[in-house]
Parts: sequence; structure tokens; C-alpha cells
Amino acid sequence: MLMAETIRFKRDGGSLAADAIRTLIRAYSAGEIPDYQMAALLMAVYFRGLDDAELAAWASAMLHSGEVVDLASVPGAKVDKHSTGGVGDKISIPLAPLVAACGVRVPMISGRGLGHTGGTLDKLESIPGFRTDLSVERFVRGVAEVGTCMIGQTEALVPADRRMYALRDVTGTVESIPLISASIMSKKLAEGISGLVLDVKVGSGAFMKTPERARELARTMVGIGNRNGVRTVAFLTDMSQPVGWAVGNALEIAESVEVLRGCGPADTTALVESLGGAMLVLGGVAATLADGEARIREAIRSGAGLDRFRAMVSFQGGDPRVADDPSLLPAAASRRDVPAPSAGWVTSVDCERVGIAALVIGGGRRRKEDSIAPAVGLRIRARIGARVDAGQPLATIEFNDPAHVEHAAALVAAAYGIGPEPPATGPLVLETIGL
Amino acid sequence: MLMAETIRFKRDGGSLAADAIRTLIRAYSAGEIPDYQMAALLMAVYFRGLDDAELAAWASAMLHSGEVVDLASVPGAKVDKHSTGGVGDKISIPLAPLVAACGVRVPMISGRGLGHTGGTLDKLESIPGFRTDLSVERFVRGVAEVGTCMIGQTEALVPADRRMYALRDVTGTVESIPLISASIMSKKLAEGISGLVLDVKVGSGAFMKTPERARELARTMVGIGNRNGVRTVAFLTDMSQPVGWAVGNALEIAESVEVLRGCGPADTTALVESLGGAMLVLGGVAATLADGEARIREAIRSGAGLDRFRAMVSFQGGDPRVADDPSLLPAAASRRDVPAPSAGWVTSVDCERVGIAALVIGGGRRRKEDSIAPAVGLRIRARIGARVDAGQPLATIEFNDPAHVEHAAALVAAAYGIGPEPPATGPLVLETIGL
Repeated sequence: MLMAETIRFKRDGGSLAADAIRTLIRAYSAGEIPDYQMAALLMAVYFRGLDDAELAAWASAMLHSGEVVDLASVPGAKVDKHSTGGVGDKISIPLAPLVAACGVRVPMISGRGLGHTGGTLDKLESIPGFRTDLSVERFVRGVAEVGTCMIGQTEALVPADRRMYALRDVTGTVESIPLISASIMSKKLAEGISGLVLDVKVGSGAFMKTPERARELARTMVGIGNRNGVRTVAFLTDMSQPVGWAVGNALEIAESVEVLRGCGPADTTALVESLGGAMLVLGGVAATLADGEARIREAIRSGAGLDRFRAMVSFQGGDPRVADDPSLLPAAASRRDVPAPSAGWVTSVDCERVGIAALVIGGGRRRKEDSIAPAVGLRIRARIGARVDAGQPLATIEFNDPAHVEHAAALVAAAYGIGPEPPATGPLVLETIGL
Repeated sequence: MLMAETIRFKRDGGSLAADAIRTLIRAYSAGEIPDYQMAALLMAVYFRGLDDAELAAWASAMLHSGEVVDLASVPGAKVDKHSTGGVGDKISIPLAPLVAACGVRVPMISGRGLGHTGGTLDKLESIPGFRTDLSVERFVRGVAEVGTCMIGQTEALVPADRRMYALRDVTGTVESIPLISASIMSKKLAEGISGLVLDVKVGSGAFMKTPERARELARTMVGIGNRNGVRTVAFLTDMSQPVGWAVGNALEIAESVEVLRGCGPADTTALVESLGGAMLVLGGVAATLADGEARIREAIRSGAGLDRFRAMVSFQGGDPRVADDPSLLPAAASRRDVPAPSAGWVTSVDCERVGIAALVIGGGRRRKEDSIAPAVGLRIRARIGARVDAGQPLATIEFNDPAHVEHAAALVAAAYGIGPEPPATGPLVLETIGL
């Protein structure tokens, strides 16, 4: 089929054959299909969607546009976790060493922060000496020897996705569940994993603001994974407020160490246990989710997870003493409390505003090219359901450059809803799919 | 608004402000908006449509992307006719001189044939010496002195449409009623006219296969014209079989002369009278459609229309003696009848197949670059409702090169439906809009 015919076929609601999708993604990657035709097709996909068979073929074709990590030489199950992103979401950092300590290897290829959400790579790089730009060979060795390794996307993996994402960004075709799903899943499938746990965030800080949209995204991704031979399950989890008490790169590493030491925030620890438990089920080490959760708890209690974290930091060039002495992490020079304007109960926290507050003081990126300040960030002092007096701190801003601190404080103050009654609070895990 | 935001706004069903549309078309014309963003926007328009205000602004912005013909120096009303295209549609050729003879000037900028449909310019150029590539200045003089002139689109008129049409052609965004309407109307409005009659074809040979789609197209175009200060009316006319008995460039010129002489085919003559009558109403020369039709009939009877045709041919460098001696037109070397395979009544004619038959023997174009053979074509010998015996000719192919004549004959034979009962036949004019 000519590309113009393919576009019309999809535009009119047709279902593309797997073969046509393979040809199309291959030709686009090779520069044989111009961006204007791909842009029109992507907009047609925005309106018409992709069915399960199309999605599986689309993600598979994207995946095969480049190299795929070959973990065949590494024995045992390889399971990863992916989060759709939120504010204060440091889950991967304690999770991967804990799962590895329980006997399931975790090859993790992560991203950087953009806009109001942080990125695992930026957080890890706040550890002195830590490198995330390892070669694929060294990554495979890390997974084999340490049990987990965390690197960034390489040029060789899923090049079609990079080109297509840049095009989607400027053509109004980002907000498409099939295209989001195929993009995420193609990158995860390229890791050479046998199982995948998805953490799909719902709420003010998440890309998906409603459970309905989040469920659709989760189901779509689970379908792509399973059709491509990777057992995939999803959790819908609450993102109506930041995860834990820390938002900011070095601050979140310190909090991750607290989770590994068994003294982390309750919500963060609970998420690590649930997601980790599911990874152990997919890895064949635990029979049930409850069994898996118990094993993760035991790996915290015994210190096995913390040991594995030290080994990972060491393997990736970082200073493993951060696991014992958080003062080795960069620290901000100054602090500024954001006081509650009135007494009452915290009824809501607009995570997006909190994330942007961390960004304006230098902890995040507006554009991909921006550099970030690893030490700065926010400490959350009051979560939803807390009773606060007027003037009591809602959060503390940790900053170096005072230039934008008042802007950040205004954003944080505006992010908090304070009401006269204690709010109803929902569960942390809204539902699971495929487990 | 940034282009990516404009795309998302339209994608989500928003109505673009006139100012935003002007900025967007101007920036696209200037090469400041890349094709991939315009392609995504066009696909969003395909799905979301354009409302009346958006359409008027879109067509007006396209129109002002280049020069506009200035007919202010020419006194009186200037009215044009546009047909959405069909097979054997030579209406413009007798129509324009007849309307001019009745006192309403007709500035006509026409197109070339492509695919199964012929083009007025190609037909006119079968007259020895006839030129359609006049300058705009000479075109204006022709309208002033002769009362009508027929040229092709120039580079200076509506350049945005040329660029956008080329993009739509390869991005599956041709079949959009708003975009088709804006494209047609921007080119017609650029003629500097005060009134416009649209002939929207319906049926097997037309772009619009159903009355519903044709009505939607007609209403959309009428709305654009009226909102831009050009009084516009539309006829929905039957294209379930070719117009007249001749399909092919020189053959249609000869048939046009027959209409001007009062001995043309009934359907062709009736269409010329109706469309011409409406043009006289819009031009202020006739009070009613019936009055206008009577004036067109009188211009045929008196020979005033034929005189005006001779003057137009002369002005445009052609041999005016073709009006008296059709043997001066190029003629094909050979003839081949297409016999009826069985006896019965002609119940249907697939115009598209008939048009493609004319194309394969050289009378049309597959691609814009193709040259055409002016002499070749088809003579229709049996129309819908005719009783035919087995072996009686349905059509005669007039050809020079025998290479593709059997293919053409097979197409013509396949185009005819022959049944045991006489079919019900519908009216030639299905309805009028805005009159």
C-alpha cells in the first residue's frame, strides 16, 4: 500500500495489517516516509485509535527499529517496573535493589525529568560519581553481577520512538493512549525483559487525571506486553499528592535510603512493597502478591536491599557511603518555609504546582537542554488529611539561588487546599490489572 | 498561539478565530510553518470540520495568499460558473459565450483534466491555435472586450492552495468537504467576480456519489461565497451518465458548437439554459430563473452566442472557423464500436469507467505531467433508458494508437448495466440551493 493509501485507510477506521505496520515503521526509520505523511497518520491514529493487534505490531516494529538488549547470557527472570511519572516518585531507586536482593534481576532503562516531573537518572546522578551513561555491555554485566543496573536510553535502542516522539510533540499527537502505550512499551520491551510491572499514576500530578483514562492506558500497555510475550501487570496508584516527603534529586536519594533502612515514609514503603511483590510474582520467586510483599519487607529488615543498593552504586561509579551517610549528598544552602495561610485540614495538593515549584528553583527542566541543580528541592511538611494551624509550615523550600524562591513559595501555597473539615482519603493502590 | 497549540485546539473541537486562521495561512505560505504541522492540522480539520466563520476566514486567507484579479475597470456584473467535475462536462464552453451575449460578463479561470474527468482548458486547446496561458492583463481585456475569457490558474493566484493541495494529496486529507470547499472557493473568489453559480455533480461520475454529500458540499461553498460578499447559488445535477454524447477533447468542442447552433444534445442544452439562466439572475439581467433561461434560448436561436464564441476563440488566438466547420478540429484515425453483450434496457452507466476508457486511449491524464491526445475519445451511442439489441453499439471509441483500444472497449462494456426492464429515470437538476 502507498503511504497516502495507508493514511486514508486508517483515517476511515481500517485496521492495519501487522505487515503494513512493520513496513511503515521501517520506512519511517529509514527516512523514506516524510514527516508530513507520518504526522497525518499519527493524527488519524489519534482519532481512530489502534486495536490490540495493531498495537502489538506497532510496538514490536518500533522496538525492532534499533538494537534490543540481549540478556540471554544472564540466567533467571528479568523483570522491570515502569511508572507513568509523578512528583516525588523515587520508587525505582529502593525497589530495584530490593527485588534484586530477593533473586529477580532488574534491568532498568530510565528517563530524565521534564516539566513538573522528576527523572530517575537525574536523581541517581546526585550521588557523587554515579554514572548512568554505561554501555549496553556494561549494563548487561551489571544486571548479571549486581542483579540490577540503571541506565539511560541509548541512541541505538528504539530510534524510531525518538524521531516519532519529537514529531508528536509539535503536531498535537502526544495525548493518544495507543501512541503513548506503544512508545512506552517499545522502550521497555527493548530491555530484553521477561516480565513488567506498570505503575500508572492517577490524579493531579499524573498525566492521567482520571481513573478511567488511567485504566485505559494500563489495559492498553498490559495488552501490548502480553501480546509480545512479556508478562505484564499494572497498578493504578494515587498521585493526588507527592510520593513521600521529599521532592528534589538528592533529597529523594536520601529518602530512598530511608526506605531501604526501614524508616521511609509509609506511602513510599507501601508502594515499594506492592510493586516489588508483584515483580517477585512475575519473576517466579513468590507465589502470591502477599508472599512477594513479605519477601520485600524481609529484604528491608535484613539489610539485603541496602547491601544491593551499595553494590549498584559502586558498580556505576558512585560513592556507596551515601547509603550510610546522607551528608555526602549535595545539600542546598538555604531554607524557606511556606506557611499555611489559615487553620484547617489539608484537603488537596496540586502536585503539578509542587513539581513546578521544584523546577523554578532549579531542581527540574523546562527544556531537554536545561541543566539541573541536584541539591535543591522541597520537603513536604503536611499531607492530605493533616490538621494545620495558620502559619504552620506546609512545606520547606531548600534552595541555593534566592532569585526564584518567592515564586516557588507562591506556587506551593497555591497548591494547597485547606478546608474546615477533614477530607475523605482514598487508597494508595486503586486497582490492579492482570495480576 | 503556537502552531502545536493551534493543532491541539482544533483536534479537541475548538473553533479557530479568524485572526488565527489568517496568521496560520500567511505563515504557511511564507514557509514558516512546516508541512508536518500543516498535515496534522489538516487531518484534525478532516475529523473536526470547520464552522461557517472558520470557513469564510480560511477561504479568504487562502485567496489573499496571492494576487486577486482586479476587474474594477470592467463595468457591469461579472459572474462565473464552477462545476465539481464529471465525464463529458463541456458545459462551460457554450455557456460562457451565451451568458456574455446576454450582457453578463464571464471571467473564467479553469483547470485541466486529471484521472477520469476532463478539463475545460484541455478541450479548448484542441481548437487550432487556442491559448489558455494569457496574462492576467490580457484576461481582463478579454472579459472587457469580448465579454468572456477562459484561462488557466496562474502562479500568482492563490499560491497557498497549490502548496496545500499538493500536501493534502499525499496525506489523505483531500476528501474533506470544508477543505474542498475552501480550495474551490478561494480560487473562484480570486477571479474578482460578483456572482457565482455552482454545478455540483452527483452520481457515479462525480466526486460526490450521494445527494447528501453533494448537498453538504454545495451548502458549504454557498456559505463561503455569500460570507465573502459574492452572491453564490448552487445546482445539484445528475452525473449518473456522461453529459451529452461526446467524451474527449475535440469531440466535446464539436458538441459545444452544436449546442450553440441549437442542435446539441437535450441534456447538455437544458443544463446550459438552467445554469446560464441563474447566471443572468445573479448578474441582474433576468428577474427569474425562467426569464434567464428564455434569454439563453433566444441567444442560441439568434446566433448571438455563437458569434460571441467566435470572438472569444479569435481573441485567444484560435481559429474561429471551427464554429462553422468542425472538420478543422483534430480527428482520430480509427473507430471501434463497443457492442451490447445482450438485449435489454440500459439501466446504468458507470461514468468513472467511461472516463478511464477515454484516458487509456490517450484522451486524459494519469498524472499532471502527462500530455494528452486531443482528437481521441468516445461517442456515447446509448443512454440510460434506451432499448438495445445484442450487438448494437453502446459507444464508439475514436482512437489513433490501437495499443489500448481493447482495454478501453472492455472498460466501456463493463460500464454499462443492461436489464430486462426499462429503468426509472430521475431529473437532470436534482435541486437548487440559494436561488
